[in-house]
Amino acid sequence: MLINCVAYENGTKLADLPIEEISDYLARPECFVWVALADATPEELDTMKEEFSLHELAVEDARHGHQRPKIEDYGDSLFVVMHLLDFGPNASTAADAGTGEVDIFVGRNYVLSVRNHSVQHFLAVRERCEREPELLRLGSGFVLYALMDATVDRYIPIADLLETELEEIEELIFTQGAARANIQRLYSLKSRVMRLKHAVAPLLEETGKLFGSRAPAVCASGREYFRDVHDHLARINTSIDNVREMIGTAIQVNLSMVAIEESEDNKKLAAWAGIFAVATAFAGIWGMNFKAMPELDWAYGYPVALIVIALSSLLLYLRFKRAGWL
Amino acid sequence: MLINCVAYENGTKLADLPIEEISDYLARPECFVWVALADATPEELDTMKEEFSLHELAVEDARHGHQRPKIEDYGDSLFVVMHLLDFGPNASTAADAGTGEVDIFVGRNYVLSVRNHSVQHFLAVRERCEREPELLRLGSGFVLYALMDATVDRYIPIADLLETELEEIEELIFTQGAARANIQRLYSLKSRVMRLKHAVAPLLEETGKLFGSRAPAVCASGREYFRDVHDHLARINTSIDNVREMIGTAIQVNLSMVAIEESEDNKKLAAWAGIFAVATAFAGIWGMNFKAMPELDWAYGYPVALIVIALSSLLLYLRFKRAGWL
Amino acid sequence: MLINCVAYENGTKLADLPIEEISDYLARPECFVWVALADATPEELDTMKEEFSLHELAVEDARHGHQRPKIEDYGDSLFVVMHLLDFGPNASTAADAGTGEVDIFVGRNYVLSVRNHSVQHFLAVRERCEREPELLRLGSGFVLYALMDATVDRYIPIADLLETELEEIEELIFTQGAARANIQRLYSLKSRVMRLKHAVAPLLEETGKLFGSRAPAVCASGREYFRDVHDHLARINTSIDNVREMIGTAIQVNLSMVAIEESEDNKKLAAWAGIFAVATAFAGIWGMNFKAMPELDWAYGYPVALIVIALSSLLLYLRFKRAGWL
Amino acid sequence: MLINCVAYENGTKLADLPIEEISDYLARPECFVWVALADATPEELDTMKEEFSLHELAVEDARHGHQRPKIEDYGDSLFVVMHLLDFGPNASTAADAGTGEVDIFVGRNYVLSVRNHSVQHFLAVRERCEREPELLRLGSGFVLYALMDATVDRYIPIADLLETELEEIEELIFTQGAARANIQRLYSLKSRVMRLKHAVAPLLEETGKLFGSRAPAVCASGREYFRDVHDHLARINTSIDNVREMIGTAIQVNLSMVAIEESEDNKKLAAWAGIFAVATAFAGIWGMNFKAMPELDWAYGYPVALIVIALSSLLLYLRFKRAGWL
Amino acid sequence: MLINCVAYENGTKLADLPIEEISDYLARPECFVWVALADATPEELDTMKEEFSLHELAVEDARHGHQRPKIEDYGDSLFVVMHLLDFGPNASTAADAGTGEVDIFVGRNYVLSVRNHSVQHFLAVRERCEREPELLRLGSGFVLYALMDATVDRYIPIADLLETELEEIEELIFTQGAARANIQRLYSLKSRVMRLKHAVAPLLEETGKLFGSRAPAVCASGREYFRDVHDHLARINTSIDNVREMIGTAIQVNLSMVAIEESEDNKKLAAWAGIFAVATAFAGIWGMNFKAMPELDWAYGYPVALIVIALSSLLLYLRFKRAGWL
Repeated sequence: MLINCVAYENGTKLADLPIEEISDYLARPECFVWVALADATPEELDTMKEEFSLHELAVEDARHGHQRPKIEDYGDSLFVVMHLLDFGPNASTAADAGTGEVDIFVGRNYVLSVRNHSVQHFLAVRERCEREPELLRLGSGFVLYALMDATVDRYIPIADLLETELEEIEELIFTQGAARANIQRLYSLKSRVMRLKHAVAPLLEETGKLFGSRAPAVCASGREYFRDVHDHLARINTSIDNVREMIGTAIQVNLSMVAIEESEDNKKLAAWAGIFAVATAFAGIWGMNFKAMPELDWAYGYPVALIVIALSSLLLYLRFKRAGWL
Repeated sequence: MLINCVAYENGTKLADLPIEEISDYLARPECFVWVALADATPEELDTMKEEFSLHELAVEDARHGHQRPKIEDYGDSLFVVMHLLDFGPNASTAADAGTGEVDIFVGRNYVLSVRNHSVQHFLAVRERCEREPELLRLGSGFVLYALMDATVDRYIPIADLLETELEEIEELIFTQGAARANIQRLYSLKSRVMRLKHAVAPLLEETGKLFGSRAPAVCASGREYFRDVHDHLARINTSIDNVREMIGTAIQVNLSMVAIEESEDNKKLAAWAGIFAVATAFAGIWGMNFKAMPELDWAYGYPVALIVIALSSLLLYLRFKRAGWL
Repeated sequence: MLINCVAYENGTKLADLPIEEISDYLARPECFVWVALADATPEELDTMKEEFSLHELAVEDARHGHQRPKIEDYGDSLFVVMHLLDFGPNASTAADAGTGEVDIFVGRNYVLSVRNHSVQHFLAVRERCEREPELLRLGSGFVLYALMDATVDRYIPIADLLETELEEIEELIFTQGAARANIQRLYSLKSRVMRLKHAVAPLLEETGKLFGSRAPAVCASGREYFRDVHDHLARINTSIDNVREMIGTAIQVNLSMVAIEESEDNKKLAAWAGIFAVATAFAGIWGMNFKAMPELDWAYGYPVALIVIALSSLLLYLRFKRAGWL
Repeated sequence: MLINCVAYENGTKLADLPIEEISDYLARPECFVWVALADATPEELDTMKEEFSLHELAVEDARHGHQRPKIEDYGDSLFVVMHLLDFGPNASTAADAGTGEVDIFVGRNYVLSVRNHSVQHFLAVRERCEREPELLRLGSGFVLYALMDATVDRYIPIADLLETELEEIEELIFTQGAARANIQRLYSLKSRVMRLKHAVAPLLEETGKLFGSRAPAVCASGREYFRDVHDHLARINTSIDNVREMIGTAIQVNLSMVAIEESEDNKKLAAWAGIFAVATAFAGIWGMNFKAMPELDWAYGYPVALIVIALSSLLLYLRFKRAGWL
Repeated sequence: MLINCVAYENGTKLADLPIEEISDYLARPECFVWVALADATPEELDTMKEEFSLHELAVEDARHGHQRPKIEDYGDSLFVVMHLLDFGPNASTAADAGTGEVDIFVGRNYVLSVRNHSVQHFLAVRERCEREPELLRLGSGFVLYALMDATVDRYIPIADLLETELEEIEELIFTQGAARANIQRLYSLKSRVMRLKHAVAPLLEETGKLFGSRAPAVCASGREYFRDVHDHLARINTSIDNVREMIGTAIQVNLSMVAIEESEDNKKLAAWAGIFAVATAFAGIWGMNFKAMPELDWAYGYPVALIVIALSSLLLYLRFKRAGWL
């Protein structure tokens, strides 16, 4: 589905184009064309391939989708794949939260962005670019930066939400009785962290190539900008690795807490069982049928017996209390 | 066993050859020969070694089999080893799923592929190549790409199946009573993941050499293609590492769930034991044989005793219920 | 908030300046200006951006804050971000201890430091610099060193406190009954260690660029000094990694101790339960209502029975004692 | 102890030499001398040091033994240390299986091999070399290759045995009651895996230097051969790392199985305890001494009581059965 | 405290000097001065700084102490820090075993060694150097080697002791009842291993710079010697990493053994509890007060009841025995 197709020259918008006129504008030396597609059909991709002479392998990747994030240099053009993550803090399993994708083809005088399986759009990016003509004048490289920057900025609240969720779990981890819920949340959190990781980590590595001394020509005029994207990714990646390591520790700690609570419960139960066992043993003894059990005939035998039972139970209770078992 | 032996020139098939004529065709400058063997005998390998002047060490590796995936550069030729994995999601142990192997010798004007211990064949690859003469014209390097691409593409459904199986286990991991089955499935999954890993990881590293600035001559005209293979391997490898890490976490989580369930069962049992211990203690006391136990002589002593026993049991039951133990 | 704005020439202080005069002093060849801001407003940053021609992206980072530590080279200037950690040994969770930030812009003839969200100030650094004119003569690079050195030196007592706390926990880890407190302290310690790690590790990596053969011009005259900062960071980092690894081991050991203690308690309880079960079984037998139970009619039947019960209990007690269960 | 001392020229054996004549043969341009020692005395090593002008530090290493595997380049000669492992699958602890060592000094015109603390000899290597004069003509470098190849090939069956043992344990890991034996075997396996690792990993790294563009002169004519040794080591190393990772998982799984089995046993026991507790509670109630307990006087009171007890026990039994506890 | 101050020329000792004369000897072209200090006062260090023109930062490090091991190149001089470890196998916690330090300043014509907080001295090194004039002739670089070699050689018995202690624990790890002692020893062992690691690992990395093609001038004439030190460190490091990995596994195994033993004990106890529960249940039933319980009136009712109780207990005992629970 075509979203936009606009030609820019010298930092300002020339015109909204029908697709057929793209090649006319590509011929102008100072002009570049920026096309946005969403969930592109194979036919649309074929048209674009022809208009911009895209490389077959890159187009095939866009067609199939489900690529890992990457930046491929085809000499005079770049092919960029980034993930669009649509999950928030409430998605409870990895499965019910979608991962979309945006594929960007950039050449000297064109930018083609194709987003798939995602509701996230980039209209705000286009508006921002059009508001900043002095930067848009830098050409298609700046548009690439703006698209990458917008995509990466959307990872930040996700990373923050994951951190916040970890903190929520951390507060419950030493609470009695929450072990089962904690472990479920930790596992679910881990799944989502891994997915963010897979959006971020390959992109971090690949963006490193966009601002060094061997950066592609398209990116040459905006190295500081691509370094900025790289830096944001590095920050998110650090935060992810932190959450990942703390999840591992939290799972261990949670297991320890289960063991500690079980151990405490066991002591408590055993203590009560012991107290009743003593009572039962005394009752059993005085329930024996020996003829000659003088205390059975005493007038106050029974109350004394009850007192003996109560006192020995109390004694045990106090000992267990002192030992911290009750 | 000889499968095919065909000469190609300028992107089109010249002829099916008997082995003896190979050398005639190798002499033609624009022609290359593509031979496919399956479970080659030592004699067949010796013939091929002579026809194509293969290096002794490479032939020896093909003869022995059970190599790790690798790409060896012998100056004017390449020797490629890849694993062929024949296991699906139902193979329950690592042992009953086979790992075959395909060995490819590529020179300027020949391709020799030898597959061993596997039912996977490459007839579709030959057909695809013959359908695309403009690409086949690139020569033996393109055939190498096509064979590698086909082999690597076969890893993708395996990786997907492993991911799917992990997701199935994940859904059961918080289900009571499934711990034993989960742990068995996780261990079996891990075994298979490791085998896919050993097919993919070395190949990932080695294919990196096929498209850089120091790529072998045979691959020079198709660098983007080999980068594409590399990229597919990278994607599979990421997916494997993800599954591997999640298996580790899932095993820990499963153990935690066992501990949590045991702890809950223990509380429940202990609670019931406590309730009965109280009843037994009361019964024991009123079963004592003291003469002077006035309540024993009351008309309604027995029903009152039963009520006392029932009430104290009920009281305990409610307390345990409130504490979440029952 | 402006803290200071001073011009230096030839290692000595020229004058405290109002902000408007900065540009006059920047024009003098041998002079440099050192400005310190705290919790700078966007307007202050804009003024500074203009005075020193700072790069937009660097200023934006300073405006937003919450950057990871980094050193960015903008050709003729450096932008340095470091964390200021305000937590001591008593902060029990990661949340209630603040992480501030200091952002430093350094050019040939200026230093601008902006500290945010932290009470830590750098007045002592300025005093030290003014006391050492022979070093201050080295220019803005030396001021950068002095600020980095001061910041990094403040990490050292934090790392030491974390080590000390680990040692305290280690002493308790084999103490009975401390498992719950230990695991809470270990988790809290881990959180703080991770935060120190995130202040130190990126900075360690980045400072490595300040003294090699490709060091930025601003740092050129003080390579040994920046290597010294790097070396301090390396030491702190080693200490952090050590604590981190030992925390992991301590958590495992703590869990083992819980298991061992539970196992010991269980044995003890089971032993007592066994002793009472024997007593109760004997009492039960002699409480049966068979007519013909001759021992019931013996004159000394009852004391003998009590002695039998006591002796068999004692026997069991001694056996359990010998087996180390009691 | 001197094993052999032979001079070769042009790929064929010239003569068995007494040690004194070595220097005569070293003077001939096309000739090289190959000496084999076993458990060499310091005196023998001193003689050799003089004959071949070996470097003091290399000789000292050979004298002390217990080196890690390494390849040291002394300009005109190489010093190679490899481990000889004498343990099979039955060695139950790391301690009772020996690790020997072979030290090889190679120069342009000599090879000196010294094996220590091992019964493994290299006579077959010498025979193989003498059978292949066209390869032996390559000189001392080929002998070095042949010795390394033989040593590395001996690691392969050890690695295979370790893999086989892992598989045997894997089959038992889900068997009830085998946990103790499994954990012992896994630990012992791990010890042996680590020793093989320490023989293989450093050698893998060091052999990488023998076939690159900066390979030592002695190895220059046989780069493919040294790459082949490197490749074998890489394969063994991969196999070791696989076993190592699976042992870690197997230990975790084994612990999980212990916990699962314990949890199942506990349920079973608690179920039986519950059934008997109910019976005892009923018996206790009807054993009370209240005067007015009408059912005690019924003619069929006793059989009815027995039936009530039996039925309630049966009821509980069936419930536990249904819940999967029995 | 000054230990020695000696001038050497041409490999032989010239004279013991008072400190004031050092500069006279430094002026002689072929001469070098070797000074040894122990627990140097700030004044002594200041004197030395002046005599040898040491760099302020290096002297400051020596003054403060507690550095991590490192080798710093100050152009015409080197500054080396190494740890001196004073702990043997009996030190039970990390805290009560000291870590000293030796700081070495080396220039073309001087060596200054300062050892702090350690009783280890280097008199034997000086004697060895003086006994080998042909090596001492190599100058200050050889002295540096000799000091490093001596320091590193002292790590070897420590590493061996740690390995031996691990082996001792390994022998106990499958012994019943030793779990608590094992876990304490393993944790203490780990602490000490980490400290040795921190002495060895940074030094291993840093010594790598002393023999490559960019080695400092001072080390140029003895590259093989520094490679030898590096090699010893690599061996110790491998041994440490081995112990470290095995400790991790041993802790896991120990926990498994605790779980297995507890599981076995639990079964045993539960079996006995079951046997007594049966006896008690029977006794309870025959203790009921029903009028019509014909067996109570049988002449041999009581012995028959005892036999029934005994037989059913025996039956249970045998079943548990067969199931391996007793």
